Amino acid sequence: MAYNSIIVRLEMNHELVNFGEVASTVSKAGGDIRSIDVIRSGQHNSVRDITIHAADDKEREITEALRSLPGIVVVNVSDQTFLAHLGGKIEVAPRQPIKNRDDLSKVYTPGVARVSTAIHENPDKAYSLTIKRNTVAVVTDGTAVLGLGDIGPKAAAPVMEGKAMLFKQLAGVDAFPICLDTKDTEEIIRTIKAISPIFGGINLEDISSPRCFEIERRLDEELDIPVFHDDQHGTAIVVVAGLLNALKVVGKRIEHVRVIVNGIGAAGVSICKMLLAAGVTRLVPVDREGAIVRGGQYDHPMWAWLAEQPQVEAVQGTLQEVIDGADVFIGVSRGNILSADDVSRMAENRIVFAMANPTPEIEPEEALKVVRVFATGRSDYPNQINNVLVFPGMFRGALDCRAKTINEPMKLAAARAIAAVVKAEERHEQYIIPSIFNDQVVPNVRRAVIEAAILTGVARRIPPDFR
Amino acid sequence: MAYNSIIVRLEMNHELVNFGEVASTVSKAGGDIRSIDVIRSGQHNSVRDITIHAADDKEREITEALRSLPGIVVVNVSDQTFLAHLGGKIEVAPRQPIKNRDDLSKVYTPGVARVSTAIHENPDKAYSLTIKRNTVAVVTDGTAVLGLGDIGPKAAAPVMEGKAMLFKQLAGVDAFPICLDTKDTEEIIRTIKAISPIFGGINLEDISSPRCFEIERRLDEELDIPVFHDDQHGTAIVVVAGLLNALKVVGKRIEHVRVIVNGIGAAGVSICKMLLAAGVTRLVPVDREGAIVRGGQYDHPMWAWLAEQPQVEAVQGTLQEVIDGADVFIGVSRGNILSADDVSRMAENRIVFAMANPTPEIEPEEALKVVRVFATGRSDYPNQINNVLVFPGMFRGALDCRAKTINEPMKLAAARAIAAVVKAEERHEQYIIPSIFNDQVVPNVRRAVIEAAILTGVARRIPPDFR
Repeated sequence: MAYNSIIVRLEMNHELVNFGEVASTVSKAGGDIRSIDVIRSGQHNSVRDITIHAADDKEREITEALRSLPGIVVVNVSDQTFLAHLGGKIEVAPRQPIKNRDDLSKVYTPGVARVSTAIHENPDKAYSLTIKRNTVAVVTDGTAVLGLGDIGPKAAAPVMEGKAMLFKQLAGVDAFPICLDTKDTEEIIRTIKAISPIFGGINLEDISSPRCFEIERRLDEELDIPVFHDDQHGTAIVVVAGLLNALKVVGKRIEHVRVIVNGIGAAGVSICKMLLAAGVTRLVPVDREGAIVRGGQYDHPMWAWLAEQPQVEAVQGTLQEVIDGADVFIGVSRGNILSADDVSRMAENRIVFAMANPTPEIEPEEALKVVRVFATGRSDYPNQINNVLVFPGMFRGALDCRAKTINEPMKLAAARAIAAVVKAEERHEQYIIPSIFNDQVVPNVRRAVIEAAILTGVARRIPPDFR
Repeated sequence: MAYNSIIVRLEMNHELVNFGEVASTVSKAGGDIRSIDVIRSGQHNSVRDITIHAADDKEREITEALRSLPGIVVVNVSDQTFLAHLGGKIEVAPRQPIKNRDDLSKVYTPGVARVSTAIHENPDKAYSLTIKRNTVAVVTDGTAVLGLGDIGPKAAAPVMEGKAMLFKQLAGVDAFPICLDTKDTEEIIRTIKAISPIFGGINLEDISSPRCFEIERRLDEELDIPVFHDDQHGTAIVVVAGLLNALKVVGKRIEHVRVIVNGIGAAGVSICKMLLAAGVTRLVPVDREGAIVRGGQYDHPMWAWLAEQPQVEAVQGTLQEVIDGADVFIGVSRGNILSADDVSRMAENRIVFAMANPTPEIEPEEALKVVRVFATGRSDYPNQINNVLVFPGMFRGALDCRAKTINEPMKLAAARAIAAVVKAEERHEQYIIPSIFNDQVVPNVRRAVIEAAILTGVARRIPPDFR
């Protein structure tokens, strides 16, 4: 059970209630008073902020108990998570202060006119003389936010701000959230193209499937800056990184294993593509209607693409049928769709990545009894598949070499770079993926991405450390 | 003449040239070597950065002289203005660091899901839980940048970044540059609406006339956040502020003066509107074809609007004709279109604001001989009409009271607030406008704007200091 601190602002009528009653009410309801701040105090009443430490599921009980006391008005309840969001989580700041008129005349009129003229004459100079070289738009339409679904652009903003914080803190990338008030594919494409001149890259985020495929494909074709849909490729890259290490732990080779990917949406499609690029020869993509089979006819363009791949199996069946004898199960689907019995029918030394959010495809406690390597999207079990491992280093690399695009070799290089952070002597069932706080992740991913970009001819600049 | 420091990176072949020759060459060409940094040094050649202080018009001469020396390759020439732009002038930074997994779980998954859910249930919470309450988009299409004209969105970026710096430094407002790759009025409107959810206000900038009127009007109608075209209203507000003080200096009342406004583009229209709101009863708008007269027929919608105003004079004529007997001339047109003789035909105690950029409507040296109060857009004469005096405090106020719009009373209040920073005992011909570094400007403008917003019913929040 998670604990949290909540701060309750109370208005107390001193004639009806005293603080002792408040304290005992909080205590009875399961809370622990940590501090009291008097905000305003009068003869008959006062306003106080009471900081209370409690289990997450006790918060409502505590505030309800306080509300029911005579003479008490609960003005406001804040918890630490909400307090961390107050006023937003990022800011836009000058890199240098403007101290006097001389500074002003350099960074604004009249001096700035010379800089603007230089860019007008050679637009490539935007990369050296503006924020373009270090700035990424984190763009969403709010249609597929976390596990919450279509909650709209305003409600998506805190996620995008959190992402911008991670971009800056982990990789020094300036990221700005763009939350779109439209769900129309063409209008999303048009809008992102229209605002693209100031950005060096576009990180698409939490856009629902299948629109996300078309939006990413078109933007990648029509813009000369890299476009990366993190929900697809971020997840896929970490899955492949984890799988590379898991296979080493169990002593199997990627060319030999039979892999089930369950849930062929945005992330599932990208996982399948990357697994094929990484060398998987026996792939079984599965969605709600069962296995997607080689030679099958499908409306969904990405399913149709999968059905054309020689490595995809031609045998039909439900998930429960096709899982028999599989070496690897990768789930990006729904909670609790697999039993321990299902998993037991897999091959020996089985690997299960159950990444449905927040409830995995199989209960971790159940899974851990019957699998050799187990990973989830959650931070409260070992082997968290977390795309925070990818996007900071990916964009750091793409920006530093001014990549035109982010291609499959760059993604595979990123996966191998993440896997390589876990050294051979450290690697075991409980440690196939580095922590997002491991400071080797971003430089390793950056270096691998730049190398791959240079090799595949999409880099427009060789960074000094590669010369 | 302005002086500047340039930094010249030289590659020197030691067999062909020595540093003494470099130094004497720089000196002969009018430069003063301030420092030398050796970047790389080999047996036969070396690379050095030479910092040279010189008059602006000597820079080319110095670099040409160096280029002509045998054994010298000029690798690069940077000046301080360009150096101040290297890598861009702003950054996007977390307001709090993410120190550990506990922090991460608050600002990103899983904690952020509760915050997103709260905003989904009540979208107004975007104002307290995201950056919306403090964030402004500085939007341009790059069609009317400074005096440079249609230089495009990339070349406009340094101006927008400079503006973002001023927003933050002067008023704590987070501003982000949006440089649009479209000139189509409808697409600009659609794009700004689409990206609006994360922003608390829209500052339109350097969009050419007459499209700017339609874009601002439509956005103001269709968005519930304030929209402000700075080129129109920023200039107009400072002009009115300066005029209010200038009239006090010369002892005339605004109801009695005859005012010429020359140049009826974006700024000119807004100046005319504000002058009427401020109480001017005798207005003569003039454009290239001469005076815009009451009762006249005009295609330009704003000219047609002016022709309907009872305070606009009905007498036709060229600028040179209608200027006879005017008390005030306000120019937002072109350089050198007025002679001292023209100005001498104005009424006694004449006031001239010559704001054409970079060359004023009349040579300052000429004007100063024949006018009582003189102002320009330039920083090298007294009384600079600079819209940096307006936008930081205007948006600080509008954001703090969550204004739905920025209406005429708020603009007039801002003008009066700027004027009031100059105290009666300080006010004279050379000091009608405060400096942009005067720290009373932003709080005064903010307060006046909030008061006007509350009075006119467009404030959606009463800031704590107004309760």
